[in-house]
Amino acid sequence: MNSRHDATGVCLRDLAERAGATLVGDGSVVIHRVGVLHHAGKGAIAFLSNPSYRHLLAGTHASAVILAARDADATSLPKLVTPNPYAVYARVSAILNPPPVEAAGRHETAIVAASTRVPSTSMIGPHVVIGERVAMGERTHIHAGSVIGDDCSLGDDCVLHPRVVMYPRTKIGARAIVHSGAVIGADGFGMAEDDGRWLKVPQLGRVVIGDDVEIGANTTIDRGAIEDTLIADDVKLDNQIQVGHNSNIGRHTAIAGCVGIAGSTHIGANCQIGGAAMISGHLSIPDGTIISAATFVAATIDKPGVYTGSFPLLPHREWQYVGAILRRLRTLAGRLRALERYAGRKGE
Amino acid sequence: MNSRHDATGVCLRDLAERAGATLVGDGSVVIHRVGVLHHAGKGAIAFLSNPSYRHLLAGTHASAVILAARDADATSLPKLVTPNPYAVYARVSAILNPPPVEAAGRHETAIVAASTRVPSTSMIGPHVVIGERVAMGERTHIHAGSVIGDDCSLGDDCVLHPRVVMYPRTKIGARAIVHSGAVIGADGFGMAEDDGRWLKVPQLGRVVIGDDVEIGANTTIDRGAIEDTLIADDVKLDNQIQVGHNSNIGRHTAIAGCVGIAGSTHIGANCQIGGAAMISGHLSIPDGTIISAATFVAATIDKPGVYTGSFPLLPHREWQYVGAILRRLRTLAGRLRALERYAGRKGE
Amino acid sequence: MNSRHDATGVCLRDLAERAGATLVGDGSVVIHRVGVLHHAGKGAIAFLSNPSYRHLLAGTHASAVILAARDADATSLPKLVTPNPYAVYARVSAILNPPPVEAAGRHETAIVAASTRVPSTSMIGPHVVIGERVAMGERTHIHAGSVIGDDCSLGDDCVLHPRVVMYPRTKIGARAIVHSGAVIGADGFGMAEDDGRWLKVPQLGRVVIGDDVEIGANTTIDRGAIEDTLIADDVKLDNQIQVGHNSNIGRHTAIAGCVGIAGSTHIGANCQIGGAAMISGHLSIPDGTIISAATFVAATIDKPGVYTGSFPLLPHREWQYVGAILRRLRTLAGRLRALERYAGRKGE
Repeated sequence: MNSRHDATGVCLRDLAERAGATLVGDGSVVIHRVGVLHHAGKGAIAFLSNPSYRHLLAGTHASAVILAARDADATSLPKLVTPNPYAVYARVSAILNPPPVEAAGRHETAIVAASTRVPSTSMIGPHVVIGERVAMGERTHIHAGSVIGDDCSLGDDCVLHPRVVMYPRTKIGARAIVHSGAVIGADGFGMAEDDGRWLKVPQLGRVVIGDDVEIGANTTIDRGAIEDTLIADDVKLDNQIQVGHNSNIGRHTAIAGCVGIAGSTHIGANCQIGGAAMISGHLSIPDGTIISAATFVAATIDKPGVYTGSFPLLPHREWQYVGAILRRLRTLAGRLRALERYAGRKGE
Repeated sequence: MNSRHDATGVCLRDLAERAGATLVGDGSVVIHRVGVLHHAGKGAIAFLSNPSYRHLLAGTHASAVILAARDADATSLPKLVTPNPYAVYARVSAILNPPPVEAAGRHETAIVAASTRVPSTSMIGPHVVIGERVAMGERTHIHAGSVIGDDCSLGDDCVLHPRVVMYPRTKIGARAIVHSGAVIGADGFGMAEDDGRWLKVPQLGRVVIGDDVEIGANTTIDRGAIEDTLIADDVKLDNQIQVGHNSNIGRHTAIAGCVGIAGSTHIGANCQIGGAAMISGHLSIPDGTIISAATFVAATIDKPGVYTGSFPLLPHREWQYVGAILRRLRTLAGRLRALERYAGRKGE
Repeated sequence: MNSRHDATGVCLRDLAERAGATLVGDGSVVIHRVGVLHHAGKGAIAFLSNPSYRHLLAGTHASAVILAARDADATSLPKLVTPNPYAVYARVSAILNPPPVEAAGRHETAIVAASTRVPSTSMIGPHVVIGERVAMGERTHIHAGSVIGDDCSLGDDCVLHPRVVMYPRTKIGARAIVHSGAVIGADGFGMAEDDGRWLKVPQLGRVVIGDDVEIGANTTIDRGAIEDTLIADDVKLDNQIQVGHNSNIGRHTAIAGCVGIAGSTHIGANCQIGGAAMISGHLSIPDGTIISAATFVAATIDKPGVYTGSFPLLPHREWQYVGAILRRLRTLAGRLRALERYAGRKGE
């Protein structure tokens, strides 16, 4: 665990160079922190990414701004000009707020099984439990109360926040960030009905996660039934996502909070899935697909695009009417057809 | 953790006085517990709040009832009469079931950083981990396995149930109740796309929570990106709610389970959000708004009211027809327009 | 925690007998593991349950297959023939992958209250906390970091994975499997509005769970307000399900991930609830009902059947048209009625 303190300050010229942006104006101004346009004060750098906030430029008290060339004339402040202001802001913020240095070492209350070697560069927090034969990368930090099952592996430079669980045999690549309460590798929901009882189907597969993956708080990813559940490199998962067994999420796909993905579904690379979307099992979503928030995907999607399926919000009374008509939409369509036939006869 | 035992008994006259209701009938009857009208027995007090249950009054075996004046004649039992039976029931139940007295003190397995002072009136359970410089109020109880990051603060009389996580710098006011598995202050879901990779945007803000807030089991509240995520006084959050970064929830708003709130959204005071509602980011909901369960809010709401947007339940076969018509609703509307034009010509 | 290793091998004849299927072909072939038809290799047994995968039979490299009589002629491999291939596969997989033997015993870091007796056949993992007067069955395993409140009970042969929380007085029957992060018995969401403030209604009931229940990762089940929340025998709950207070789930009902069930709702026996379905409070669903995924149940269902209520997925642009028409569906219905009246007059 760490605290964020105000940065000691970096001059704008250095920020331009390190973040890869063009400096326009006084490069000697010292930047201590990032801020938002309408609240930033002296020593802060703000950014303009969405042009609809352009009007805030005039009134900002920031010491510098990050923006695109098209907006550069709208302010006389020292600035970093770039085609991708949001990415430059991300880099500037990371420079100004380096992750806290945490001492390596193993807390005396951590329990580590005999066959697991803990690299001297790693940090193992209080009350952590690590099973047998776990492979741990360098500089990986496992915070308080996390539990790592037997035969797991974790790459270099990972951070597991407090109270993460990895079930046995789960594999996570390098530079993962896993937030508190995430549960990776629990049994998939597999059972066979037999004479009025459920028989549990053993869940023998693993969860295998690539490099540079972030997993949000209280997100759950189930192990496969026979084969593995796979999460590719650079996948970003927000909080409270559920990934069913044997699913497969392609490279660089980002999924917002509260999304549910049923089992054996294949989501391609470079997809974006909006919050609370729900995706059925045994289907496929092609690379580059965008699913809007609160959309239910019930069948395979054949070609990439933007897909939506949410019910529009209405004043409750209006919704009652619409709902009632919707329930008899079939009758309505029939009445329309009848009128058309009638008009057809009349028109003869 | 605590057990609830049968109360030793309070006479109805005392309950009337302490709960603020009018006693009608024998005030000397001793009440030991609360019950529901149809199952309550001797020694129990039941309540009637919803008039549709009025018929249960006749057959109840409760020793007394709490009800409104309009229903008072429907029973000859001793009674507490009040304009707000549910609130009086809440008070009576609290009187009959005082929270268990738990000894203050710090379990020997708790890890508390050197710079944090634990008040002698607080209770710190087994395997709790508390970071540096944490400010703790009086009589605050932190149950087993909870993890409090550096520089957090907690007001007086809070209860953190087992396995709560507060990330560093999270602030919670007085009298909070936080249920197990809640994660407060994890990083918001912020990243910038840069050349086919996601760059993490440092999440520098905090979560700041007012007084008298209850947070349900496995609910997650993310810290702000630059500024803070704010939860005002008397906000009540049920289980498995997700609150995105930089969001803002106004005073006395209650939110039911499974609700998702994306980032940078402002929810006003005195709102009620039904279960599984989903609210997009960067929008605003005015004070006093009611959002029905399972409703998706995709845009700012301009004036308070009751809003709904759920698809009606249908027998599956009927839904298949409705769904098919819905998909070609545009064609249907076009056909209607064509008929109108035709009728218009005919009507000339 | 445990690891799965390749089974030492069982001959097909033994599998047929122990799993209750008819052997056809060479019973001496030794089976080491289960596999899927298209990836299984020598030593593996695969199964065919869904006839749409029948074409995979021809190319499989499995050493044997499990299938129904109708598909038996499609392969010359040694086979187990059965009316229920999926159930036989479940049994075969369980035979080939017996749960790992874990040594009974109590980890030295576990905290067990004085009045609780731990059977010598049970396993209590590191950093587990068990309260007073807990009744524990034989051979029950409680993994790392779980917290069991005072006066709970757990039947024989249960497995609690790491970091489960049982609030005080929760009862769980025999052979339960509870996955990590599950929270059972937290307070229901009950409060009374009183003069612009929320009064907490004490949640005095318990959660009482039958035998053979499985509870998924990060699922939450709230205790009752006055009476108990009840989960019957053989109920299977997937991950991230929320069960509100006083609800009641009947025998052998299976509920998929991300489902929310509000308070005081009665779900019958032998129901199947699809993922992300949302069920309002104070309603009733009869035995044998099937609710499709992503469906919102807002009122009592009178007779069993399959019910659905999800919005169809559309290309975003098409959805915009449909949504716009849907909003004015009432006008559309009115225009249709006007045309009918007009046609009626014309037709006279």
